[in-house]
Amino acid sequence: MTEHSVDSNRTCPVGRSLDVMGDRWSLLIVRDAFDGVRRFGDFQRGLGVARNILADRLRKLVDADVLVSQPAADGSAYQEYVLTRRGESLFPVVVALRQWGEKHLFDRGEKYSRLIDTDTGKPVPVMTPRTAGGSPLPPAQTRVKKVV
Amino acid sequence: MTEHSVDSNRTCPVGRSLDVMGDRWSLLIVRDAFDGVRRFGDFQRGLGVARNILADRLRKLVDADVLVSQPAADGSAYQEYVLTRRGESLFPVVVALRQWGEKHLFDRGEKYSRLIDTDTGKPVPVMTPRTAGGSPLPPAQTRVKKVV
Repeated sequence: MTEHSVDSNRTCPVGRSLDVMGDRWSLLIVRDAFDGVRRFGDFQRGLGVARNILADRLRKLVDADVLVSQPAADGSAYQEYVLTRRGESLFPVVVALRQWGEKHLFDRGEKYSRLIDTDTGKPVPVMTPRTAGGSPLPPAQTRVKKVV
Repeated sequence: MTEHSVDSNRTCPVGRSLDVMGDRWSLLIVRDAFDGVRRFGDFQRGLGVARNILADRLRKLVDADVLVSQPAADGSAYQEYVLTRRGESLFPVVVALRQWGEKHLFDRGEKYSRLIDTDTGKPVPVMTPRTAGGSPLPPAQTRVKKVV
C-alpha cells in the first residue's frame, strides 16, 4: 500500500479539484451552465436550491475562475454567469459523472436524459482513460506516483 | 435555452450520480481506495477526517454498492473496504477530476502527484469525450436531450 498522509492531499490534483468543486451544488450549477443556463433565476428554478446557497456557490465559482459574471447579452439589466475556459474544461468531469449514473443508477426501462453529439444525433460514446496507444486503461494498470 | 425544472434533476444521470457521490469525502475515499487503501484507520490517517464522518461516508458507500466491507485478506480481525465493480467504474470520474486539477490548480513549478500507466511508466494521457469516430468532442457539439 502506498504511504498516505494528510500532506499528500495538498499535492494531489484530485484533492485540489474537490477543494474547488467538491460540492453537489457547484457541480450541478456547472452542469446547467453547459446546458445553456445563464441567469440566477433560471439556475434557481432549475435546481430548486435556496437563493442564499445559490448566491454563495455562484460567488465561489466566480472567485475560482470557473464562471464569469457579465452583463446580459440581450442588453437587459440581468447579470449572466458564463463558463470560463477553466470552467469549460470541466466537461470531462460532467460527462464522467453522467456516464457513471447512466450505467449504474437507473432501473431497467427507467428513462433518463441523454447527452447527444449534435453532428450525429447519437449519444456520446462512453469515455474512458486510455493508454498512449489508445487502448482502454484499467485502474489496475495505473499507480499514483507521489511527490517526494 | 433548454427548459429546466426541478423534475429534470430526477431524470438527469449527473444529478443522480451526485446524489450518491456529490460529497468531497466520498470522492476522496474512492480516490484512496483506487490507491490501495482498505482499512478504516488508513483512510482516517490519510484523509485527516473525523472518525464519525468517515464512518458515515463508508457506510453510505457500502449501502450504495460502491464499496464492499469484508474480512481482511491477511486473516486479521480488521474489516477492509474494497471497491465493487460499480465503484471501480468511477475510475473516469477520478481521472477527470485529477486532470482538471493538474491543468488548472497548480502554480508553475509546483509539484503534484501523477497517475502513471504502469506498462509505460508515463503519465496517463489526458482523457476527453470523443465522437464515435474518435475525435475530441467539444461541449459546443453536444446537447442534452431531456426525457419528455
